[in-house]
Amino acid sequence: MSFNRFFIEDAAKFEGQIITLKGWVYNKRSSGKIKFLMMRDGTGLMQCVLFKGECDDAAFEEFEKLTQESSVEVTGVIKKEGRSAGGFEMGVKSLKIVSVAEPYPISPKEHGVEFLMNHRHLWIRSQRQWAALRVRAEIIRSIQEYFDQLGFVRFDAPILTPNSCEGTSTLFSTSYFEEKAFLTQSGQLYGETGAMAFGKVYTFGPTFRAEKSATRKHLTEFWMIEPEVAFMTLEENMQLGEGLIEHIAQSCLKNRAKELQILERDLSKLEILKGPFPRISYDEALKILEKRGVPIPWGEDFGAPHEAALGEEFGKPVFVHHMPSQIKAFYFKQSDTHFGDASTTTGKYAFGCDLIAPDGYGEIIGGGQREENAEVLQRRIKEHELNQADYEWYLDLRRYGSVPHSGFGLGLERTVAWMTGVPHVRETVPYPRMMNTLRP
Amino acid sequence: MSFNRFFIEDAAKFEGQIITLKGWVYNKRSSGKIKFLMMRDGTGLMQCVLFKGECDDAAFEEFEKLTQESSVEVTGVIKKEGRSAGGFEMGVKSLKIVSVAEPYPISPKEHGVEFLMNHRHLWIRSQRQWAALRVRAEIIRSIQEYFDQLGFVRFDAPILTPNSCEGTSTLFSTSYFEEKAFLTQSGQLYGETGAMAFGKVYTFGPTFRAEKSATRKHLTEFWMIEPEVAFMTLEENMQLGEGLIEHIAQSCLKNRAKELQILERDLSKLEILKGPFPRISYDEALKILEKRGVPIPWGEDFGAPHEAALGEEFGKPVFVHHMPSQIKAFYFKQSDTHFGDASTTTGKYAFGCDLIAPDGYGEIIGGGQREENAEVLQRRIKEHELNQADYEWYLDLRRYGSVPHSGFGLGLERTVAWMTGVPHVRETVPYPRMMNTLRP
Repeated sequence: MSFNRFFIEDAAKFEGQIITLKGWVYNKRSSGKIKFLMMRDGTGLMQCVLFKGECDDAAFEEFEKLTQESSVEVTGVIKKEGRSAGGFEMGVKSLKIVSVAEPYPISPKEHGVEFLMNHRHLWIRSQRQWAALRVRAEIIRSIQEYFDQLGFVRFDAPILTPNSCEGTSTLFSTSYFEEKAFLTQSGQLYGETGAMAFGKVYTFGPTFRAEKSATRKHLTEFWMIEPEVAFMTLEENMQLGEGLIEHIAQSCLKNRAKELQILERDLSKLEILKGPFPRISYDEALKILEKRGVPIPWGEDFGAPHEAALGEEFGKPVFVHHMPSQIKAFYFKQSDTHFGDASTTTGKYAFGCDLIAPDGYGEIIGGGQREENAEVLQRRIKEHELNQADYEWYLDLRRYGSVPHSGFGLGLERTVAWMTGVPHVRETVPYPRMMNTLRP
Repeated sequence: MSFNRFFIEDAAKFEGQIITLKGWVYNKRSSGKIKFLMMRDGTGLMQCVLFKGECDDAAFEEFEKLTQESSVEVTGVIKKEGRSAGGFEMGVKSLKIVSVAEPYPISPKEHGVEFLMNHRHLWIRSQRQWAALRVRAEIIRSIQEYFDQLGFVRFDAPILTPNSCEGTSTLFSTSYFEEKAFLTQSGQLYGETGAMAFGKVYTFGPTFRAEKSATRKHLTEFWMIEPEVAFMTLEENMQLGEGLIEHIAQSCLKNRAKELQILERDLSKLEILKGPFPRISYDEALKILEKRGVPIPWGEDFGAPHEAALGEEFGKPVFVHHMPSQIKAFYFKQSDTHFGDASTTTGKYAFGCDLIAPDGYGEIIGGGQREENAEVLQRRIKEHELNQADYEWYLDLRRYGSVPHSGFGLGLERTVAWMTGVPHVRETVPYPRMMNTLRP
């Protein structure tokens, strides 16, 4: 299969040829006997120039009827033009209107966020939204490429689950024939079963949190990538994560330079994303936070100011590992010390590793080594007041060939926000879902 | 990032080297002074041979303790061995037990389906399940590769939606803060908005149907791939679809030959999947069905016997196009004739195109050209007794630069069933969700 159609992003291949560009009017202007039609076709923008004499007369008449976003087929010659954004423009020969658009609601003037969100189906045609979502698609591609190249098997976790992974307070539920089902918050536990069957797996799918928080970092529906690897240590887990961030950043720089330019992204922020990233223990992080004037007591989780302070300290993403067990989920491997002396006597620390992005983009990766001892895990399930019967299948992984294993979750939308520099995650997904946003 | 670890699928690169294989006992046997350990590590199987004198004595003692699925680290030399499945085996030097497995519930003897489904988290370690899910991962990879190479932008449709795409009778719903949300049945309508913004898009995500049917072709949660292209005709839509099937089949043959062999798949069934596939109108299909003794009255949809008859007629996948409007959704473009004379006077036929797979695998692709006329579309919404207010955003696509456009949906699990030859879709996804199956 190949499309015989012309697309703007392929213009270089068609230099000197007469082609038909099918798309929409981005804007238009007249300058004496010359008329300019800026066209978009979804792959880019192209200036189409109507010269009296080179273009049929009917086209000039049709030109006058065109409104913003009208659909048109424009036929003409592709010419090199250094002053044009894409390096090419079209000398128009003829023009065929497909549909004249009604007055388009989104004009170059400023619109409120609520208005734009209600018109998301049209807003995505605007340059910045278009660019951000093209970067999103590239990030997805690069993530899959990274894991595929390392021999991972994609292992889709179910969305409908009979019980929760990390507590039930923020779960969406649905009636599932005779019983109740929950929308998954994480594919991790299923991913662990995959690691035992396939060695190296990653899940890639939507996850859900019914959080009543309206922040610029939270969506109720967001995509997660969760690799899980048998026999993988915490240090290897961090290597896997930093390699992923590096690959994503390099792919964006290489394949989405034009879009990042539209977004006015400071490319140096992506260029510095090369491993190894600094690694500090939670206890070490606390000392830095104290020095920087945002101390927290031992045992508390980081908030936005603490993440920001760590970002400033290093100017790079930083892994924080070995957090207090008390703030981590039941499945983390336990440690007596903040540098990883595994033992089950005190379990003061958890073998966790979170990657904090600089510039306030917050926790991008959350992961760790999992508890492989069936007895410790049963104790933790009890301590977290979970129903062991719900986790018998998960405990089976420790009964039938338990191995040390690790993994992490990467939040797609936060990663897109970070790479593109857009200030709110609502612009990193085609149709964001938030507390007050379910439409269109 | 690169894993320094040895994996069985990379054995050829390690010939003659001493390496450590980390994995699980698939089975073991003794033959006099030689002991054989068949190991799996998630990427394949490898025979590890313990020769008295070449292997340390402790390993012989440890060998006796090993049960099926025990986790072990085996160190030894990789040797070429033509009689082994993967072409290599290991001459063991030492062996370290990680964890001795309790008696493993899945033995080589026959188990009932219910038992296996309840042990899905372990069943996926079995050869046939392992092979089928490895083919699934390859099919996902090949689908993305196909669309990426054609310049498509991946455009994720939301899972939580305020209204339904094709009627509400089979929808899962959830309380969404103050209102009600439904789990999506299709990303198509959203995909259409993407086509107008990006030209060529595809969605790729889970979709849901609360169908009370327990057949071998239905899941309540299944993955769909839905390309949608602006200015694409019905014929180009069929070309796009047959190109996709061809690419999937070729990728499976090229990259998953070993797995297809484990599944005892007749490879000729995949080799014939080269376009162009036959195209017949619904009216033509009815004549064939009559000839083959399974007639249906005009206006009825095909059932399994009719799909089977069409498969037998052609021995290849076949596109059936221009079905009766009355059995198609509201968004199909209308036609007066069964070969596509577009007009809105009678609208007897719909510009649909479904791909029927041979050998009873049924409808693999369902698609068509969409109605681009706002008035006709409004009339159809009314005829289908849908609430127009819910579709104003969708109608906007016809108000602001409407263009002819087409797309289709490909069901991932049915495609995996077809390529692998497994008889039931429950074996084509890690954790199938069906009417009576929500666990584990």
